[in-house]
Amino acid sequence: MKKLDEITKSESVAYKGSFLEFKKDEVLLPDGNYAFREYIHHPGAVAILVIDKDDNVYMERQFRYPIRKIIYEIPAGKLEKGEDILEAAKRELEEETGLIAKNMEKLGEDYPCVGYSDEVIHIYLVKEFEEGKQHLDEEEFVEVEKIPYDQVLEMIKNGEIKDSKTVHAISLYKIKYDK
Amino acid sequence: MKKLDEITKSESVAYKGSFLEFKKDEVLLPDGNYAFREYIHHPGAVAILVIDKDDNVYMERQFRYPIRKIIYEIPAGKLEKGEDILEAAKRELEEETGLIAKNMEKLGEDYPCVGYSDEVIHIYLVKEFEEGKQHLDEEEFVEVEKIPYDQVLEMIKNGEIKDSKTVHAISLYKIKYDK
Repeated sequence: MKKLDEITKSESVAYKGSFLEFKKDEVLLPDGNYAFREYIHHPGAVAILVIDKDDNVYMERQFRYPIRKIIYEIPAGKLEKGEDILEAAKRELEEETGLIAKNMEKLGEDYPCVGYSDEVIHIYLVKEFEEGKQHLDEEEFVEVEKIPYDQVLEMIKNGEIKDSKTVHAISLYKIKYDK
Repeated sequence: MKKLDEITKSESVAYKGSFLEFKKDEVLLPDGNYAFREYIHHPGAVAILVIDKDDNVYMERQFRYPIRKIIYEIPAGKLEKGEDILEAAKRELEEETGLIAKNMEKLGEDYPCVGYSDEVIHIYLVKEFEEGKQHLDEEEFVEVEKIPYDQVLEMIKNGEIKDSKTVHAISLYKIKYDK
């Protein structure tokens, strides 16, 4: 097996945004040379796949400024400082959809952009829940829509759904439960 | 339907890295208020799912500095300035694995982190190819491994594979070809 590891020699924050940090670290490469690695430090996130008893998936429509498009994705959000991951998943789900989860099953974890971000997204499955009231953060605009599971698969196939965490969540559910 | 769109009022580059730009734009929100949106401008990327006639997937093992781990992922890389997307996919595949694609089928597109990056990853499928010689970029260390398709599904299920674009590519293949 090849030697692949890189060793941190120094770390620095090149720019500090409101929730993202642009980091620039110096590393020792496997071949003995030095290089700089630039990446984003992110607090981590949760994403929640909710499927009701009639096999509908709770999806959100949201304008995503970086790509300048309204897209479909499952409920998700950033971890707050020091927050328990499971609590964050419950909180985000309730804020964005009004749903109160009665159980949460960890489906897995997602690395969205290993090349330039340390973000990890913790993916949960919710099958039992009560309905409550959406209460979004300021500067957040989200529309919730229930879409039949088979149609969601079709939307992944035809490219109507391109959001990575959403596809990962559906994929884990599909492989795990052979749906 | 709710109004969801945000309108750009001004754009700025808060920090310019070697291939990433940290942007900070002012936007007009759907409710008439103003806000800042921070995100990364990325040149875009390609990812290539190669499956041979015996149903083996060409995977790479690579140390990913942001998450400080060696992970499994399919061949992928950034677009060079002005480069044709299909050409980039051929080039990256050849550089990282030595494989020369005889055909390439577009499987779809992936948005890895819609919350804070404008990156789009173009995903291709390659089923016919010739074997050549790996020639990696400087500062790039990659080990290629062939893994049976069914084992790749198992690795997604048990969390050995967490890389988003890899799961998306496999998912598109699975849904499209009912594998």
